[in-house]
Amino acid sequence: MEKVNLAEKLASIHDHWNPRVVGELNGQEIRLVKFAGEFIWHRHENEDEMFMVLKGRFTMEFRDRKVRVEEGEFLIVPRGVEHRPVAIDEVDVLLFEPATTLNTGNIVDAHTRRHLEHI
Amino acid sequence: MEKVNLAEKLASIHDHWNPRVVGELNGQEIRLVKFAGEFIWHRHENEDEMFMVLKGRFTMEFRDRKVRVEEGEFLIVPRGVEHRPVAIDEVDVLLFEPATTLNTGNIVDAHTRRHLEHI
Repeated sequence: MEKVNLAEKLASIHDHWNPRVVGELNGQEIRLVKFAGEFIWHRHENEDEMFMVLKGRFTMEFRDRKVRVEEGEFLIVPRGVEHRPVAIDEVDVLLFEPATTLNTGNIVDAHTRRHLEHI
Repeated sequence: MEKVNLAEKLASIHDHWNPRVVGELNGQEIRLVKFAGEFIWHRHENEDEMFMVLKGRFTMEFRDRKVRVEEGEFLIVPRGVEHRPVAIDEVDVLLFEPATTLNTGNIVDAHTRRHLEHI
């Protein structure tokens, strides 16, 4: 039962698209990740995902539209929906999602991170 | 799939200890609440709770110690652990917890909110 300081954890992350686990509860994880550039199109068959912007902004692309998510905003992407996050500049994002969630969903490629570091 | 702006939602909350639901995913809810003063001692038998401070600070009291949670920090209280939040000044808090979580846990009194408003 130690509190977690988000800024301290974020300061230790020096790469992109590589989520770290900073909290676990009820089978869910709180993850921190930095985005920069374009990710890949993917979907999660069994998991809804929440993206909360802590610093910066990014665009969540869907097949039929785009949603720009700014600092202090969050977006929930329901299971089954294809999406692709795109960040022009680096952005700090907090994720809430089931511990089973693979970052690239139904796609496995060089972006896939199967074993997330706990920081 | 609409994004949620936390400041806009918080601006519509004018009472204390009355959580509002602002997001739902994977059987969990994202709730916003303002604390001020002392809450009651309680525990949740089956739910872990996450408290993230968006603005201000509060103290989570446990039977054997206290943890001060500041803006930009979060604390996870595991199921079964008695706790009591205390805020000297008003504080904006984001909760992430199962949709089944009753705000007063094992206690039912005037603080209990059985049907949370979705805003």
